[in-house]
Amino acid sequence: MRQSQLFTKTRREAPKDEESRNAQLLIRAGYVHKEMAGVYAYMPLGLRVMEKIKDIVREEMNALECQEFIMTSLQRKELWERTDRWDDRNVDVWFKSELKSGGQVGFGWSHEEPITDMMRGYISSYRDLPVYGYQFQTKLRNELRAKSGIMRGREFVMKDLYSYSRTEEDHKAFYDRVIEAYLRVFDRVGLGDSTFLTFASGGAFTQFSHEFQTVSEVGEDVIYLDRKKNIAINQEVLTDEVMSQLGVNRESLEEVKSVEVGNIFSFGGTKSEQLGLYFKDDDGSQKPVILGSYGIGITRLMGIVVEKFADEKGLVWPESVAPFKAHLISLGADERAEEVYKALTEAGIEVLYDDRDARAGEKFADSDLLGIPYRVVIGKRSAESGEAEVKSRTGEETEIVGISGLVKYFNK
Amino acid sequence: MRQSQLFTKTRREAPKDEESRNAQLLIRAGYVHKEMAGVYAYMPLGLRVMEKIKDIVREEMNALECQEFIMTSLQRKELWERTDRWDDRNVDVWFKSELKSGGQVGFGWSHEEPITDMMRGYISSYRDLPVYGYQFQTKLRNELRAKSGIMRGREFVMKDLYSYSRTEEDHKAFYDRVIEAYLRVFDRVGLGDSTFLTFASGGAFTQFSHEFQTVSEVGEDVIYLDRKKNIAINQEVLTDEVMSQLGVNRESLEEVKSVEVGNIFSFGGTKSEQLGLYFKDDDGSQKPVILGSYGIGITRLMGIVVEKFADEKGLVWPESVAPFKAHLISLGADERAEEVYKALTEAGIEVLYDDRDARAGEKFADSDLLGIPYRVVIGKRSAESGEAEVKSRTGEETEIVGISGLVKYFNK
Repeated sequence: MRQSQLFTKTRREAPKDEESRNAQLLIRAGYVHKEMAGVYAYMPLGLRVMEKIKDIVREEMNALECQEFIMTSLQRKELWERTDRWDDRNVDVWFKSELKSGGQVGFGWSHEEPITDMMRGYISSYRDLPVYGYQFQTKLRNELRAKSGIMRGREFVMKDLYSYSRTEEDHKAFYDRVIEAYLRVFDRVGLGDSTFLTFASGGAFTQFSHEFQTVSEVGEDVIYLDRKKNIAINQEVLTDEVMSQLGVNRESLEEVKSVEVGNIFSFGGTKSEQLGLYFKDDDGSQKPVILGSYGIGITRLMGIVVEKFADEKGLVWPESVAPFKAHLISLGADERAEEVYKALTEAGIEVLYDDRDARAGEKFADSDLLGIPYRVVIGKRSAESGEAEVKSRTGEETEIVGISGLVKYFNK
Repeated sequence: MRQSQLFTKTRREAPKDEESRNAQLLIRAGYVHKEMAGVYAYMPLGLRVMEKIKDIVREEMNALECQEFIMTSLQRKELWERTDRWDDRNVDVWFKSELKSGGQVGFGWSHEEPITDMMRGYISSYRDLPVYGYQFQTKLRNELRAKSGIMRGREFVMKDLYSYSRTEEDHKAFYDRVIEAYLRVFDRVGLGDSTFLTFASGGAFTQFSHEFQTVSEVGEDVIYLDRKKNIAINQEVLTDEVMSQLGVNRESLEEVKSVEVGNIFSFGGTKSEQLGLYFKDDDGSQKPVILGSYGIGITRLMGIVVEKFADEKGLVWPESVAPFKAHLISLGADERAEEVYKALTEAGIEVLYDDRDARAGEKFADSDLLGIPYRVVIGKRSAESGEAEVKSRTGEETEIVGISGLVKYFNK
């Protein structure tokens, strides 16, 4: 993409009412636009990052033979009443509205209820099980406060997966496969080293649920880590009993702040019983279907990647989620730079080409702010020498690479 | 994809409360799930069709050098008040809700206001123009009645494009390019022969706006066609004056029902003035930016494709938007069918493989209902003869194709 065509601009200052570092940087670099507190639009560069993260998650979900679909934002009151989750006293994040045709309607903050209800049309026998389905859905949550940028929004994108299993054993086997897939996702977006499978409160059905927590100073959660044993425990369940059960002791635990980037729940047959989702087993008996739900906050993941890697100069994207692999900068050598842009693009390398009429200092500062992994400078000398200056966003050293070898360099 | 893994099922009967033929068929075939009147979830097959349509539209938008982004559903009251479009007396399709933090919030039924307001951060000089940006957005509209299936939903996906131009001339040139691109879109999804650029009422700023109307018995609009001159006029603007202006006469006009599949508007500088989007021209003067907006209803397009092509046996998809190109059916020859499935899939041909343990009659009826362009039957004789029976969904004749030649057959 030519930077001269990108309609967003970088800016020196973030909006004064923006408190979070991730949103400040993303707004300054033109990746997102703040519509209101906790509500962000994704501009071309931001959308590219979001789609890269979604593609990674999608690949891992499809590898588990999960099927993608998309539910609706509008929600039926009577359905959520059946599980006692309509009332504001039980769920305090509903947006609700009046229907012109009469009655109330809600806006989806979660989707276990409509999906489980829908499955009554598709699941009736043990032969129909298991079912694994997921969606990328824009969730709406009426949060009282929203001060964490894109990490906790009133409107945000989540991948939610639902598993419908015949038995607890089948459920457990799939549940463990999801844990592995989630760890691969966090690894692939660059958070592998700092993300831990964490024991958290389990609710009515199980002693524990599992969360994925990424260690970060901006986190709203506190977890206790035993790095040697690779065990993490959410503060909310840290008791003597739990420590002894998990074989850790308080002295070896490190207290850290963290951000919940994923969570997984086992519902057993409870929700299926509430909503009437039963199947006929091979002995003729009617049984409730065993439900699991598994979430990854896509936009939150983008936010924590920003928080984790950004430096004093701006954004720093891991290659796997960067909007472009290379940032090509022409310094008065447009003809040669055009050739390079064409050659790289034709070779399938994603390039943002700074073809603007601007000073070198401005181009470099913008490049650092945008955070694309590699900067490729074509200057006046390049035209003569046939060489480009390549620098990684976080590296100190500039490498001289022959222009004819650039495609190979980036495909390595 | 293996059909045994698809969680949706076909069914003989549509829900009793579903009046529209497109939704009846899509529900029976498992492409969509009805959440409530005018609110449909898209199951794996339906999502595949929607994504194919989006990809076609995206290609045509990108070819015009438009940039994709995504705005928010949540809308600020004070912004829409500035253009007098918040009040229910002026806009009767708002969903509105109370914010926990105080005040009201709306849910996006259109996005001219927030995008134009946002552009104030990116456009200040003639050097920043033009800007062309588009999104695929889930729109929410509080319709009193919703009886047309996915053709008029309370929740639906729209592609909306916005152009910001320096002069009326620049605007007009781009506007004409969008018309060409839209006609290509309708052509590519199979509606080219029946879709007409139509003169419609222009509102405050221009005498006419342009719509794209697809002739259909289920249409809610009435247009008048002069097929020879390729001119179409919406009933709402058909006056003697307009007919003489466009050089047609009443006798040569054919009255037909139609569905609006796209529309384009010129706003001039009006909305920019209301929202304060000005630019400094090269003579130093401040001018309002010229706005155009251009919509295609993605899910509506899917609905009209269903209405247009479906027959008494079920859905019929044009190849360009079909969820799969071929429907491979094994009749007691699973081993050989597996080989074919693998070979076609590896060659990049999208195949739905009916590997279920079911009767031939059931498989054929389901195949007709699903509407995939080509049916490939591998029976017991195929294993010996090395031949498959290929039939197009709408053809009468069955073709005998050597199994080793199937990849070539579908790549032709």
